[in-house]
Amino acid sequence: MAKIAIIGAGLIGRAWSIVFARGGHDVWLWDPQASAVPASRDFIAARLPELAEAGLLRGESESAILGRLHGAATLEQALDGAVHAQENGPEDVGRKRELFARMDAVAAAHTVLASSTSTIRASLFSEGLPGAGRCLVAHPVNPPYLIPIVELGPAPWTDPAVVQRTRVLMEDAGMVPATVKKEIDGFLLNRLQAALLTEAMYLVEEGYADPADIDATVREGLGLRWSFMGPFETIDLNAPAGLADYCARYGGPFREMMAASKTPSWSPDLIGRLHDAQRDRLPMDRQGKRQAWRDRRLMALLAHKAGQPS
Amino acid sequence: MAKIAIIGAGLIGRAWSIVFARGGHDVWLWDPQASAVPASRDFIAARLPELAEAGLLRGESESAILGRLHGAATLEQALDGAVHAQENGPEDVGRKRELFARMDAVAAAHTVLASSTSTIRASLFSEGLPGAGRCLVAHPVNPPYLIPIVELGPAPWTDPAVVQRTRVLMEDAGMVPATVKKEIDGFLLNRLQAALLTEAMYLVEEGYADPADIDATVREGLGLRWSFMGPFETIDLNAPAGLADYCARYGGPFREMMAASKTPSWSPDLIGRLHDAQRDRLPMDRQGKRQAWRDRRLMALLAHKAGQPS
Repeated sequence: MAKIAIIGAGLIGRAWSIVFARGGHDVWLWDPQASAVPASRDFIAARLPELAEAGLLRGESESAILGRLHGAATLEQALDGAVHAQENGPEDVGRKRELFARMDAVAAAHTVLASSTSTIRASLFSEGLPGAGRCLVAHPVNPPYLIPIVELGPAPWTDPAVVQRTRVLMEDAGMVPATVKKEIDGFLLNRLQAALLTEAMYLVEEGYADPADIDATVREGLGLRWSFMGPFETIDLNAPAGLADYCARYGGPFREMMAASKTPSWSPDLIGRLHDAQRDRLPMDRQGKRQAWRDRRLMALLAHKAGQPS
Repeated sequence: MAKIAIIGAGLIGRAWSIVFARGGHDVWLWDPQASAVPASRDFIAARLPELAEAGLLRGESESAILGRLHGAATLEQALDGAVHAQENGPEDVGRKRELFARMDAVAAAHTVLASSTSTIRASLFSEGLPGAGRCLVAHPVNPPYLIPIVELGPAPWTDPAVVQRTRVLMEDAGMVPATVKKEIDGFLLNRLQAALLTEAMYLVEEGYADPADIDATVREGLGLRWSFMGPFETIDLNAPAGLADYCARYGGPFREMMAASKTPSWSPDLIGRLHDAQRDRLPMDRQGKRQAWRDRRLMALLAHKAGQPS
């Protein structure tokens, strides 16, 4: 049990608060807009019943978890004694630099300063700070209380011990960290997603498939194994002598396929067709309902996975 | 209930037999090697108890399903009166051409002739046949009784009514068809897999991530949603105004990421590193046990999905 500071109490900050409070930590939320803190508490209280029902609160009561949430009146109060600060400000380099400079000036030397950014490299907001070595990216997928992966992205000057401490902290809170060993745009998850989406868009644009059939190919095919095995383990089990054997058999054809693929245009026409295909399935005014369905499906999937042998 | 001919009783032919017998059809297996047919029956009988336990036999008894399996002494007997023939011969164009010519000569005009090939376009084995219009690819993922997707790949001359009939047949048997509207190497599934694997290999080769962390990024991140939503539906729910909004926000960064990515070398050194990383997790002599685990996980996942609202 340690003190965690959540800096910025928007959607991501609220979600992180659930993760760390569920993990047994004392969570102190701060937001420049003071009203965001009580609003966060209400949001979190509304999420806990369904998490409890899905068995995702580690057997604790909702009130025990809510009891570990605290509002901080100032940034200083949030950071005072915290082992880890999770920043969730706007995706703007200038504002992140400013916020990290402030946090670095205030926080004790042992406090790790992590950003939830999905697009900004750690070096861009930490360069030149006295405590640059304790700054890194810790990028979640929304919402992190339902999706375990968190990408840890150090700057070149981040202390490796800080990365290691953050891995342990995240694992203890039920997250699964993946380290981005050198800085790269998009980190790992969005690059893998972009690669698959790019090929999917190419296949639609060139008339090889309808969007609904692409979705089916993932949902009823690739995505099943990928929900409990990664892509490397998947191919390792798909050839008698393992991954090297798989690559010997299919590496050549896979290279040829990718060499023959083209970058899709991302044109308004293509995007419009893809968007319209989604609207045929789901009117825009039902998006909120569908997002709630997605989150219930994620909860049920996590509960299912927790009961399976790994 | 109709008659289905399974031509070639290796691993894929056996798996298809389960799909169609479970779907209520009379299945007639033929293999040039006569001993393969009783061996298939034993294999299938051994699979049914765990499928029954996972609730994946549509409430029928194992014996009811076994009762619909028949061994055919000749290709002619297998095809006689069949509405659909599913070919599972060797992945060799010459041998497929030969087999399709034989099937086309024997089968009644209304019999659809489908190949399970994962690598050979329908035009390559059906060109010039009198019944070329009833030939197509119906590519499953192994094993099809656990993975619903089936890719339907017509040749340019395949009768659209044949594709439509095959879609309906597959859907009735619990499969989810995706149509490859124009011929392309790798069809849809392997192209999407190749795109993601290529980026994954690039990230490892250039030192951005360890293979285990790539696997975690998919298994604990991307793969969760993709197991019940496709990639297009996923992004459609990840921006307030849907897919077009998502592309307006992230399309630019995604294009830049992919433009900056490089094709991995697929070198022996890279493959060796990836293979060794898998061996650290799993000694080669435990692969069979792990494959059995994977299949149990797939069964449990299907049972889980069947109980969820779509």
